[in-house]
Amino acid sequence: MKRTEIGVALLGFGNVGSGTYKALEENFALIEKKVGAKVVIKKILVRNLNAPRRVEAPAELFTTDFEEILRDPKIDIVAELLGGINPATGYIRAALTAGKHVVTANKAALAVHLPDLNKAAAFHKCMLRYEASVCGAIPVIGCISRALTANRITAVKGIVNGTTNYILTRMAAEGASYEDVLKDAQALGFAEADPTGDVEGYDAANKLSVLMATAFGIYRAPDSFERVGITGVTMEDLAAAEAEGKVIKLLACAEEKDGGIEAYVKPVAVEKDSFLGRCGSEFNAVQIDCNMAGPIFLQGKGAGPEPTGSAVLGDIIEIAQAIAAGTEHEQPFTALI
Amino acid sequence: MKRTEIGVALLGFGNVGSGTYKALEENFALIEKKVGAKVVIKKILVRNLNAPRRVEAPAELFTTDFEEILRDPKIDIVAELLGGINPATGYIRAALTAGKHVVTANKAALAVHLPDLNKAAAFHKCMLRYEASVCGAIPVIGCISRALTANRITAVKGIVNGTTNYILTRMAAEGASYEDVLKDAQALGFAEADPTGDVEGYDAANKLSVLMATAFGIYRAPDSFERVGITGVTMEDLAAAEAEGKVIKLLACAEEKDGGIEAYVKPVAVEKDSFLGRCGSEFNAVQIDCNMAGPIFLQGKGAGPEPTGSAVLGDIIEIAQAIAAGTEHEQPFTALI
Repeated sequence: MKRTEIGVALLGFGNVGSGTYKALEENFALIEKKVGAKVVIKKILVRNLNAPRRVEAPAELFTTDFEEILRDPKIDIVAELLGGINPATGYIRAALTAGKHVVTANKAALAVHLPDLNKAAAFHKCMLRYEASVCGAIPVIGCISRALTANRITAVKGIVNGTTNYILTRMAAEGASYEDVLKDAQALGFAEADPTGDVEGYDAANKLSVLMATAFGIYRAPDSFERVGITGVTMEDLAAAEAEGKVIKLLACAEEKDGGIEAYVKPVAVEKDSFLGRCGSEFNAVQIDCNMAGPIFLQGKGAGPEPTGSAVLGDIIEIAQAIAAGTEHEQPFTALI
Repeated sequence: MKRTEIGVALLGFGNVGSGTYKALEENFALIEKKVGAKVVIKKILVRNLNAPRRVEAPAELFTTDFEEILRDPKIDIVAELLGGINPATGYIRAALTAGKHVVTANKAALAVHLPDLNKAAAFHKCMLRYEASVCGAIPVIGCISRALTANRITAVKGIVNGTTNYILTRMAAEGASYEDVLKDAQALGFAEADPTGDVEGYDAANKLSVLMATAFGIYRAPDSFERVGITGVTMEDLAAAEAEGKVIKLLACAEEKDGGIEAYVKPVAVEKDSFLGRCGSEFNAVQIDCNMAGPIFLQGKGAGPEPTGSAVLGDIIEIAQAIAAGTEHEQPFTALI
């Protein structure tokens, strides 16, 4: 029986949820053509029905009741866009258990639970996809797990956190102190009121954990490798780097070394004139070293509602195409862990 | 019945064929793990059984008889790596008709026959993949058709021919003439004895035709849009560009304009300090402008046996995974044309 409609629920309607909604609205006809069926948002889980919205959506879509989504047979795909480990991880698990496919942008939940969630997805024969969890619009997960799949990956290194790249870029350009630029970044909305997750490297470590699992098929908890943030980077450090033609970037790096994988998140002085050194504040950049293809460089917007939403939507489309083809329970399980 | 082995035939054992063979040999165990079955080269079609080989392979694999490959039930996937329009196009068609999936690196054949070959693949319910046909190791086809699929693509522009990029880079760096650098490039093996296909932009036009079909879902024959090569680029042109902080690159570009798509291959002066301007001679680079994700930048090796072979092998793995999952005849047909 040919499906004419694929139903989706969004968990969360903040920046990423509303960006996903808008991206689908904007490209609806194109996506219908690619899938061979309409992809339709059926429900949106929010905490507060009356909160102001970044993007308009019909009031009847919103619910505060996750169970309503779980038991709705018209919902094929659950997109978890809440962020944070709880309750998101439980929702992902429950959705898989109920036979629904899951897309998530949640690096915090994945960094802690990816092996378990991959197992749950395989057990319930559901698809679990997470392109948007690392570097927003840059298709780094898809490139590693699909397009570059013929390669052994020997290293992944990148600038994966926009807030810290913004702060370091401005510190270097203006000779300004960390404290001054942070205050300004907070006023402009580029840094959160509590910036700890970004500036201490926790966010980058979560992303590196997800990248390592995807690239090397090994799981490393984000608290199991070196993590240094940018709070200790001084104007003197930046000037010393500059004198050597270098610039300091917060790098997330995992590479083969001595038969194992060495991983770290820390500020590193890189050549100004290198691919990573040239990555300006609004962009993220990732270098993937492949044993056959050589180095592959990816750059793009690492955040923002529509860029990240388009990555979520890309995963939704992949699953919707499989549902339309009737192969959604037989997808090759390419995850290595 | 679980498949324990997926059989592959290579048509051609030149640079790309031998690179594919070597990449599979090198990463055999990793690929077996990803596919859940062994991926095995069963036959290699060559013109001359006694020609010297770049890479060693068992003598019994080689054949000069295409029909032997067609009627071998153990061959699931045919990788067409001959190049040129004929006899390659006929081989691709025959393989699809015989129910075999096809991977090709052949931009010349695709640029002329892609719509027809896509139709044939759909009719015979076989998979047709061609990542390696554009920019070697750079996963530009995969990114456009899968990872960025939620987007309307508004422009694709890139440096897609290594020979011309090498010549222009050296002309600019050394203040040398086109003729002198070309001679040197030929001596070093970076340009062919008859360089017409590269230096007159035919190769780039073929790739642009394939990119346009993938990105916009429209087919434009490579002789239907502007094509200017680099033979007319003078030392004075390069000096004038340099004086403005620019550098001349042979760009292949297709972008939305006035409700249609404007396409061209021609030398263009671009900012030295831009993504495309900084793409050095050994690399290819492509910028994909997306209506939701913003610009995505990809850079990597655009040629070379193992880089290009790894792209061929990536497509082989995708098909092998589908065969192992039993979904190879139900793959969503994502091609827009």
